[in-house]
Amino acid sequence: MSDAPPAAAAPAEAPQGEAPSKNALKKAQKEKEKAEKKAAAKARELAERTKKEAADAEDISKDSYGELPLTGSKDYKPTGIARVNLDDVADHVDKEITFRCWVENARSQSAKLAFLNLRQNLSTVQAVIAASDKLSKQMVKFCGTVPTESTIVVTGLVKKAPEPIKSASIQDFEIHIKQLFIEAKAQVPLPLQVDDCERPLPAETAATEEEQKEEGGERPLVSLNTRLNNRTIDLRAKINQSIFRIKGGVCAIFQEFLSKKDFTLVQTPKILGAASEGGANVFELNYFGRPAYLAQSPQFYKQMLIASRFQKVMEIGPVFRAENSNTARHLTEFTGLDLEMEFQEHYHEVMGVLEDLMLFIFKELNVRFKRETDLVRGVYHVDEFKLPDSGKVPRIPFTEGIKMLREAGEELNDYDDLSTPQEKHLGRLVLEKYNTDFYVLDQFPIDIRPAYTMPSPHDPKLSNSYDFFMRGQEICSGAQRIHESELLAKQMREHDPPIDPNGAGTKDYVDCFRNGCPPHAGGGFGLERIVQFWLGLPNIRMCSLFPRDPQRVTP
Amino acid sequence: MSDAPPAAAAPAEAPQGEAPSKNALKKAQKEKEKAEKKAAAKARELAERTKKEAADAEDISKDSYGELPLTGSKDYKPTGIARVNLDDVADHVDKEITFRCWVENARSQSAKLAFLNLRQNLSTVQAVIAASDKLSKQMVKFCGTVPTESTIVVTGLVKKAPEPIKSASIQDFEIHIKQLFIEAKAQVPLPLQVDDCERPLPAETAATEEEQKEEGGERPLVSLNTRLNNRTIDLRAKINQSIFRIKGGVCAIFQEFLSKKDFTLVQTPKILGAASEGGANVFELNYFGRPAYLAQSPQFYKQMLIASRFQKVMEIGPVFRAENSNTARHLTEFTGLDLEMEFQEHYHEVMGVLEDLMLFIFKELNVRFKRETDLVRGVYHVDEFKLPDSGKVPRIPFTEGIKMLREAGEELNDYDDLSTPQEKHLGRLVLEKYNTDFYVLDQFPIDIRPAYTMPSPHDPKLSNSYDFFMRGQEICSGAQRIHESELLAKQMREHDPPIDPNGAGTKDYVDCFRNGCPPHAGGGFGLERIVQFWLGLPNIRMCSLFPRDPQRVTP
Repeated sequence: MSDAPPAAAAPAEAPQGEAPSKNALKKAQKEKEKAEKKAAAKARELAERTKKEAADAEDISKDSYGELPLTGSKDYKPTGIARVNLDDVADHVDKEITFRCWVENARSQSAKLAFLNLRQNLSTVQAVIAASDKLSKQMVKFCGTVPTESTIVVTGLVKKAPEPIKSASIQDFEIHIKQLFIEAKAQVPLPLQVDDCERPLPAETAATEEEQKEEGGERPLVSLNTRLNNRTIDLRAKINQSIFRIKGGVCAIFQEFLSKKDFTLVQTPKILGAASEGGANVFELNYFGRPAYLAQSPQFYKQMLIASRFQKVMEIGPVFRAENSNTARHLTEFTGLDLEMEFQEHYHEVMGVLEDLMLFIFKELNVRFKRETDLVRGVYHVDEFKLPDSGKVPRIPFTEGIKMLREAGEELNDYDDLSTPQEKHLGRLVLEKYNTDFYVLDQFPIDIRPAYTMPSPHDPKLSNSYDFFMRGQEICSGAQRIHESELLAKQMREHDPPIDPNGAGTKDYVDCFRNGCPPHAGGGFGLERIVQFWLGLPNIRMCSLFPRDPQRVTP
Repeated sequence: MSDAPPAAAAPAEAPQGEAPSKNALKKAQKEKEKAEKKAAAKARELAERTKKEAADAEDISKDSYGELPLTGSKDYKPTGIARVNLDDVADHVDKEITFRCWVENARSQSAKLAFLNLRQNLSTVQAVIAASDKLSKQMVKFCGTVPTESTIVVTGLVKKAPEPIKSASIQDFEIHIKQLFIEAKAQVPLPLQVDDCERPLPAETAATEEEQKEEGGERPLVSLNTRLNNRTIDLRAKINQSIFRIKGGVCAIFQEFLSKKDFTLVQTPKILGAASEGGANVFELNYFGRPAYLAQSPQFYKQMLIASRFQKVMEIGPVFRAENSNTARHLTEFTGLDLEMEFQEHYHEVMGVLEDLMLFIFKELNVRFKRETDLVRGVYHVDEFKLPDSGKVPRIPFTEGIKMLREAGEELNDYDDLSTPQEKHLGRLVLEKYNTDFYVLDQFPIDIRPAYTMPSPHDPKLSNSYDFFMRGQEICSGAQRIHESELLAKQMREHDPPIDPNGAGTKDYVDCFRNGCPPHAGGGFGLERIVQFWLGLPNIRMCSLFPRDPQRVTP
């Protein structure tokens, strides 16, 4: 059809009586080509239309499938038909339901039969469509070729499956499709398969694609970087949906527990006029031409709120650390679960609140997020998270921890800091001895804690401070803080490195303890760490929706 | 005692047989002075000790008052005595209770009688102490002179007051002090009186101290700047405690409502590799030697999560705006209450959720924070917040709002943006017509909305977007978003100013809509604004614990 006869040669608008100029000839040639193209397009359009009309005429299902216009941009009238949650199909056997879902895969078995795996949240169901005198082959073909990951609206009959469908999470029912409309079509091919994101990360040791292939089956396991570069597809995987439901759940349970204990949820500033905690590892920003800094923790502010008579405060917010660490344990931006409270007589009152808080979170995760927890742990073959049978969390003095490690062959002095491998080793020893993955180390050496930590009454080389551990890794650091400004100033000056108690970032903080501040203690949890160690995941980036590290600030 | 006889004149260590040198003489003089001082100090100490011992001997109450050692730094043994909440005193009439509180003021009536106003949270109680054969004058004197704002522990008898005590919030009972210990002494004088922070801010019109004096009574009203400079004292005022309890409450109620509707609480990154929304008003930071930016909103990310199959997401987090605006309405850092959700057929489904959410928040604030609300509104003489009797929130088309304003004399064209005074004017008109302080404007002109806003099906110059208002001021901006990448890219290119859909900060966002993203809408609330307009406060800084504006990054 592209070899249509050329249009009339002479350009209509050439100046009269003159031989056409070079430009005029060029112009004429262009217009001719344009006219040709137009004619060809018209012919094509006509042919298509005729073909489509013919097809429509014989397509008895033509109103039951297709692509919907873009919702909201056309004058689309709501049908008002209630949409069903796939988890409720058992309530609708032999009835017609309508639901939105997305396509895990679609395959034509024959010209008359197609199967689709449909997904909604964490659930999948099998749908089937067969041509009949009431359902056209065209519709079957359309359904069998819907691109994977397209969002669709399906109307279908819920039928008891003749035998359990192993490829779907809903095994006892299937959907017989009556209508199928594409709401949002996915591109083909996708940059990354969601299926591949359901599989574990390649082990750090399996460096080559060949090794990964061996470990992961047919296709090589997809690297974390590739997944994070295509995070909006990666996140669709059930394992990731589960991780972030659990993460949101931890926040909710954290607040629920502390609200009942009359904690006030607060928001402290993230932009600071001066780097408060020494100035190392802090991001500097341009604040209307002056330098300002991103908060490395809400520490000073939550204490200032205790001094302001907020008796118990909690905060959930971003924490920024300019540490150039490219490990599986570090992020430059993470979520802090912070709390601070006055106590009456002893900082162990606060430790008790923190222990009860974590026990409540674990208990509720096991109730509210069991499905998600099992799904994620299943992929990584992770053991259950062990809690003390007695309900009493072991409070191990730091010096006792050192002793346990020394007896197990580690070389350590009484007041040494523990390395990460030593912490993990201690975790294994504690698990053996106390049968728990959750425990507390108490009374840390004062030299390895921040300047505002209250010295221990029992040993001037120790302090009223504690760390909480899950599976041998630290999730929370906390302490009783000094609530008297003279002692605080002295400790800051004598700290290594020394901190000026009259500095721009410290003076307001130190001074607030001149006005009658009650004794207080608190702690800061890393939300991503709680989720990571609850699930036993190999990399903290898996617990951040869009992780930030020294190499990554996108997407 | 300072005129003790001079010590021996010759310096003991002067070289033998030589006349003492000038330096030696100086040294001798110094040592002489030192010895004199030492002797004087010793004499003073002895005298004091004798006096104190004499006093102690005759002080029958000496174990019932005093300053406690710094809690936790000495080997202080917990008493285990339960501490009582002052709001529960009615349960303890004629019984002895122990409680921590702080001193609003203490005054000696005579050598034998003293009164104290004690505070705990929002409650105050009167305490009295009288000398008797069982209670020493020394103790009465000590109690009558405890510095204001000190934190103390009191043991006392709860007695029915002979007549209502008007100066305290607990009017029917008083405490007869048995023991009083200072836990944390406040400095004298305080840099700012808490009492002064309970009074309203000076009106913007009352510029001089004289005018303020007239308006505020005896003492001039304290300026906002002075209060914010001494924020840890300012925040102790009941009005401020109330504001921030309400603020924490709004967050909790927001999450409670949306959790029940299956929203997932998420955390999106605050550090961005590229300025996504055009680059104006964005803070730049130094990210390991490269530029990075602070998120101006979670907009792109919450939409990317919808594309990632999180069907409903909410976020509570800081939002950063580098706007050089020094008004009563702007902060450079505030708290965003954000949500985004897919909808089935029409974006009004989402508007309905947002309306119900706000109605639920208002209802619950009236239940859970009535005391705090009344306390704050009382100080500023603010009217109750009016809600529609029908329970149906007026949804006023933007063009209708323009019409109302024109009829009231404003000069406006159909597609003009509203100025702040015009918004407030419209608020008054809506209050008159619909008797509500809460309403929605729908279908805004597309030219005054962001590029990702879905055009209206009814008029290409309008859009599927809405703002929510409280007392005539915007608290939320929202819309249906474009969920198809081609249309989104086109709208971005045609936007004023144009946005490159392939830019470093936009490409991942635009591309995520190629993979089958469902239709969705959402909104972002300013938390501080909700609190400000609920309470009718004159300045948004009052609703931020440590506000940030172009002039202020401390404390």
